[in-house]
Amino acid sequence: MKTRRSDRLVDMTRYLLERPRTLVSLTQFAELYESAKSSISEDLTILKRTFHERGIGLLETIPGAAGGARFTPYMVESEAADFVASLVNAIDDETRVLPGGYVYLSDLLGQPWFLQRIGRLIATQYLREPIDAVMTAATKGVPVAQAVAEQLNVPFVIVRNDTKVTEGPTMSVNYVTGQSQRLEKMELSRRSLPMGSRVLIVDDFMKAGGTIRGMASLVKEFEGQVVGVAVVAEGRVEHRVIDKYTSLVHVDTNKDDGIIKVKAGNYAEEIYGEGSPAEISSAD
Amino acid sequence: MKTRRSDRLVDMTRYLLERPRTLVSLTQFAELYESAKSSISEDLTILKRTFHERGIGLLETIPGAAGGARFTPYMVESEAADFVASLVNAIDDETRVLPGGYVYLSDLLGQPWFLQRIGRLIATQYLREPIDAVMTAATKGVPVAQAVAEQLNVPFVIVRNDTKVTEGPTMSVNYVTGQSQRLEKMELSRRSLPMGSRVLIVDDFMKAGGTIRGMASLVKEFEGQVVGVAVVAEGRVEHRVIDKYTSLVHVDTNKDDGIIKVKAGNYAEEIYGEGSPAEISSAD
Repeated sequence: MKTRRSDRLVDMTRYLLERPRTLVSLTQFAELYESAKSSISEDLTILKRTFHERGIGLLETIPGAAGGARFTPYMVESEAADFVASLVNAIDDETRVLPGGYVYLSDLLGQPWFLQRIGRLIATQYLREPIDAVMTAATKGVPVAQAVAEQLNVPFVIVRNDTKVTEGPTMSVNYVTGQSQRLEKMELSRRSLPMGSRVLIVDDFMKAGGTIRGMASLVKEFEGQVVGVAVVAEGRVEHRVIDKYTSLVHVDTNKDDGIIKVKAGNYAEEIYGEGSPAEISSAD
Repeated sequence: MKTRRSDRLVDMTRYLLERPRTLVSLTQFAELYESAKSSISEDLTILKRTFHERGIGLLETIPGAAGGARFTPYMVESEAADFVASLVNAIDDETRVLPGGYVYLSDLLGQPWFLQRIGRLIATQYLREPIDAVMTAATKGVPVAQAVAEQLNVPFVIVRNDTKVTEGPTMSVNYVTGQSQRLEKMELSRRSLPMGSRVLIVDDFMKAGGTIRGMASLVKEFEGQVVGVAVVAEGRVEHRVIDKYTSLVHVDTNKDDGIIKVKAGNYAEEIYGEGSPAEISSAD
C-alpha cells in the first residue's frame, strides 16, 4: 500500500527499532511503503534528527540509490546517570544481603524495565565495535546477557556448571574460583558458538572475577576474542583476578552485620570517558 | 522543546513501544513535547491507524483532557503463521535430537530475533487479560520468560531445582515428574512473587508436563492463579498431566533412530481460534 509520510515515519521507527545494527536498504523501504527512494531519504533525515535529539540512538544514513540506514541504540550520559542512580537506590537495602556477601538482585533482573536499560547502557560502550556474541554463566547472568544481546542484535550463549542439562557435545575448561580457590569446571555447547567469535562477557554480579576468567579461557578454546567484560554489580574484594571490566554499580556488603553500601560503578569512565569508543558526538 | 508533528510521531512511537500495556496520559505527552493536547490527540489517531494497518499492536486511546493512550503489542495471524513456519523449518533437523528425546533449541532461544517474536506471539493470547508475572523453570525456560515478560511489561520469576543458588528464603513444593515418576523438589524465592498474583507459566519444552504441574502447585502456595500455560515446543507423549496449554510447535522425536518430525503446535486454535480472548477485530 502506498503510504503517507506520517504513516511511514511511525512504521519506519518501529521497523528500525526492531532491527538494531542492521543495514536496511532504501530499496527495502521503498518496496515496503511503495514510495520513491527520494521520499524515503527525506523520512530518514527526520528520523535521524529525532533519534539524535531524543537520545534514542545513532541512525547512520548511507546516501544514494544503493544506500540505506542502520540504527544503533545508545544511552546518553545524563540518562545513564539517572538510571544508575535509580539502580543504586533500589539495591541500597540491607535486606538484600545474602549469605556469603552476595546480594539479592533477582527482582530487579526480572523486570523488563530495568533489563532494557541495563542492556542499552552496556551496549553503548560497543557502539562502534563489532560483536558476534554475548556470553554469560547460568543462571543469574542469563537475563543480563539476553538484554544486552537484544540491543546488539547478536546471539547470547550460556556457560554451565552442571552437566545434567543435555546440550549435545560440549567444550569445557577448568577454572579456579576467585576467592575460595576451588577448582571448578564450566562448559559450553559446541554448536552454540562459532569458532573465532568476538565475544562480550556479561554477568549479574562479580566478586573476585573467577567465573569471568573461566569464561575468558573458554572463549580462547573456541579460538575467539574477548571484546569486553561488563557486570551489573561488582562487589568489594581484596584482590580481583581480572583488571579490565565495566560495572554499573559497586556494592560493599558486610556479611557479619548485614550492612550494605552501594554506589555507582566505573561505567561513567569506561563508557563515557575520554577516548571511549562510544563517544557520542554532536553529529550522532 | 516544542516539536514538529513529524518529530513527535517518531518519538511517540518509540515511547509507546518501550512501554507496553502502560497508560500514558495526554498530559505526559503534552509536557514531553510542549504541545497542545489537541495536537497530541491528532498524533495518536495517526499512530493508532498505522499500528493497526501494520499489525504492530492495539493502541487504545482514551479521549478527552483526562485521556491518554495504551499500547498493547500483538501479532496478527498471518505473521504468526509465517513465523511458526520458520520455527518449524529451523527445528526440523535430525542433528537436534538429544538423548532422552529432548531437542536442542538453545541456539534459537539465544537469538533475540526469535525470542522477540516468540514473546509477541505468546503475549497475543493475553491481549485483553491482566497478568502480574511470568513464571518459568531454570535454566532453559528463562529466555522465553524474559521475552514474554517484556511484551507484557511484567516481571518474570525463575523456579529452581538446585538449592545451591542463594536467593534468600524460599517457598518449595514437591512434584512428580511426568514420565519417570520421580519425586523432585522445586522452589521459588519468597520475595520474588507477591501473594495472590495472576501468573502465566511458560517453558521452552514440554513433555508430559510434570514440571509445569509443579509450577502450578507452587503458584497455589503463593495463593496465586494460573492464567495460562505456553511452551515453545511440545513433545509427543502417551499421556500428558496437564490438559490446557498453548504450544508453538509440536516435535516428535525417536531417540532410537534420531528421526525428528516437526509441525505447528496448537497455537492457531488457542490464540486465534473462535472465542479466543485475543480476537483482533478490524477496529483494533
